Amino acid sequence: VRKMFESKRVVEAVARRLTGLGLDERSAIVVAEHLIDAELSGLRSHGVSRLAGIITTLASGNRNGPGIFGQPAPSVLRYDAHGELGIVAVTKAVERAREVALEQHVCVMATIGYVGTTGVLGTYTRFLAEAGLVGLALCSSEYAVAPHGGARAVLGTNPIAAAFPADPVFSADLATAAWAYGDLKLAMDEKRQIATGIVQDIDGNPSTDPNDADNGSQLPMAGHKGYALGLAVELLCGPLLGGKAGRNAVSGSDGTLIIALRADSYRPQDTVEREARLLFDEVRNTRRAPGVQEIRVPGDRYPRGADREYVELDVELLTRFEVTIA
Amino acid sequence: VRKMFESKRVVEAVARRLTGLGLDERSAIVVAEHLIDAELSGLRSHGVSRLAGIITTLASGNRNGPGIFGQPAPSVLRYDAHGELGIVAVTKAVERAREVALEQHVCVMATIGYVGTTGVLGTYTRFLAEAGLVGLALCSSEYAVAPHGGARAVLGTNPIAAAFPADPVFSADLATAAWAYGDLKLAMDEKRQIATGIVQDIDGNPSTDPNDADNGSQLPMAGHKGYALGLAVELLCGPLLGGKAGRNAVSGSDGTLIIALRADSYRPQDTVEREARLLFDEVRNTRRAPGVQEIRVPGDRYPRGADREYVELDVELLTRFEVTIA
Repeated sequence: VRKMFESKRVVEAVARRLTGLGLDERSAIVVAEHLIDAELSGLRSHGVSRLAGIITTLASGNRNGPGIFGQPAPSVLRYDAHGELGIVAVTKAVERAREVALEQHVCVMATIGYVGTTGVLGTYTRFLAEAGLVGLALCSSEYAVAPHGGARAVLGTNPIAAAFPADPVFSADLATAAWAYGDLKLAMDEKRQIATGIVQDIDGNPSTDPNDADNGSQLPMAGHKGYALGLAVELLCGPLLGGKAGRNAVSGSDGTLIIALRADSYRPQDTVEREARLLFDEVRNTRRAPGVQEIRVPGDRYPRGADREYVELDVELLTRFEVTIA
Repeated sequence: VRKMFESKRVVEAVARRLTGLGLDERSAIVVAEHLIDAELSGLRSHGVSRLAGIITTLASGNRNGPGIFGQPAPSVLRYDAHGELGIVAVTKAVERAREVALEQHVCVMATIGYVGTTGVLGTYTRFLAEAGLVGLALCSSEYAVAPHGGARAVLGTNPIAAAFPADPVFSADLATAAWAYGDLKLAMDEKRQIATGIVQDIDGNPSTDPNDADNGSQLPMAGHKGYALGLAVELLCGPLLGGKAGRNAVSGSDGTLIIALRADSYRPQDTVEREARLLFDEVRNTRRAPGVQEIRVPGDRYPRGADREYVELDVELLTRFEVTIA
């Protein structure tokens, strides 16, 4: 059963639940806002359901930071989170990346040493774009995707996010796996068959059973191309930063790499944004293929203003996680 | 008819042809080596056949630079090529990017204002990786790909390249279109049908005719995901840098964005390279799917040493371009 709730009250309730487990208030609000923003954006698999892992982590007495910033060069930083929750750690890192990029024009920020979900990568790049920066982000994740030609998972779903300042902000966020795990889960729940090329069975045979995302392995998007991109992400967030990689190769946590670049580095900001809008309009107004209602630019559907006041949530999920909305 | 030639002599012959058209000797060798490296790598569509456009440009009295470097911030540079050939311009830019990145740890380099092909993007990122840098590169290209849901081309094939220092160097280079144009051309020549999802006809209907790459439009790789990435590349190389974007939105040339980052920014170089090799071995040794002979890491097939001494070339092509090998 899904019901509408006032967003503000849900954020308060989730934050209260987390402070009750010992998380400091500022971090609790960061996590709550992140999860509710995911719900508002329709990314249910990254919303309130993630409280499961977060509550378990906090209840287990996770040391939870504080992390330490390092700055090997004026434009190159790292944040070693010392066991902080992923959403808390990467939020701190991207806030610092924004500051440094506004001053130095560019900032490369590595975040490692955090626990649990990285959160929605696109949330961090959008945050940069809203400050007039181009934002790129990559992160590694638990192995789930087979290399091209392989019969079992070695790589994470390894998403890539890119955001560009414009009105509305351009925001792309995509796993290098063929499908998002959230969509696979939906197909599992609805006992639906899926097309081939998305998952394979445990022996590497083509499969149309979404459960093979768990029992077999996921496939990279676009075959060898998604494999190449996913492996690049694994390299950049694993060996480069000191995050984990593969099934065995390197131990450690997930890693996140963020690149922020001032959009006025080469041309005046208003010229850049105006030409971006012209391009978006050209794309949106492209003659449509048969049966297509609308051509969208990534980010077009991000809820703004009044669309953020209420959020639809799964009531059982709130009960299960002991979130009580006032 | 294809024949084997000594690589060194082909480079000399191509360079001689270009200096004969007024190109300076250093630039002529850069272009010749770039094209022969593409042939050696099996990228025929970016090899000697590209002399067609290059010779036309030079013969038309193209002003051909010299370009001007700008440095809006210590780690952010631009190279405005003032009409230089693309391969010459981007080679100069990536050489400078390497210097700056080795000193500043990171360099973001924009190249605009060049004429004709950008060349093989992966050649530039490989050059960075060979110097111990992580290399990322994006470039825009002439419109050929429809936005997701659109019936006609607006975006370029907009490739992305990534290279990582290791032995051998990891090097991925992929168009955000479903297929490389070279493969489409091959299917056209062989009058082969192709799967749906690669091109569409002029009205946006699914097509299996490779000629619809020209008569209709190409489709993005992996549907909305490749569309999102391709549009991100178009934004970064168009509005951000001042290159062209879309069909009409902005006039000007292609743009190339290169990001170079010292691989020892966060951890010692030998640790980074060792863990990269462990990951590659893990990937290569993954249990294989039925019928698969080998799992490769992007870059594994790049020819080295003795494999570079001779190159197989199309004799008619050499004759057509008046390239005489001594």
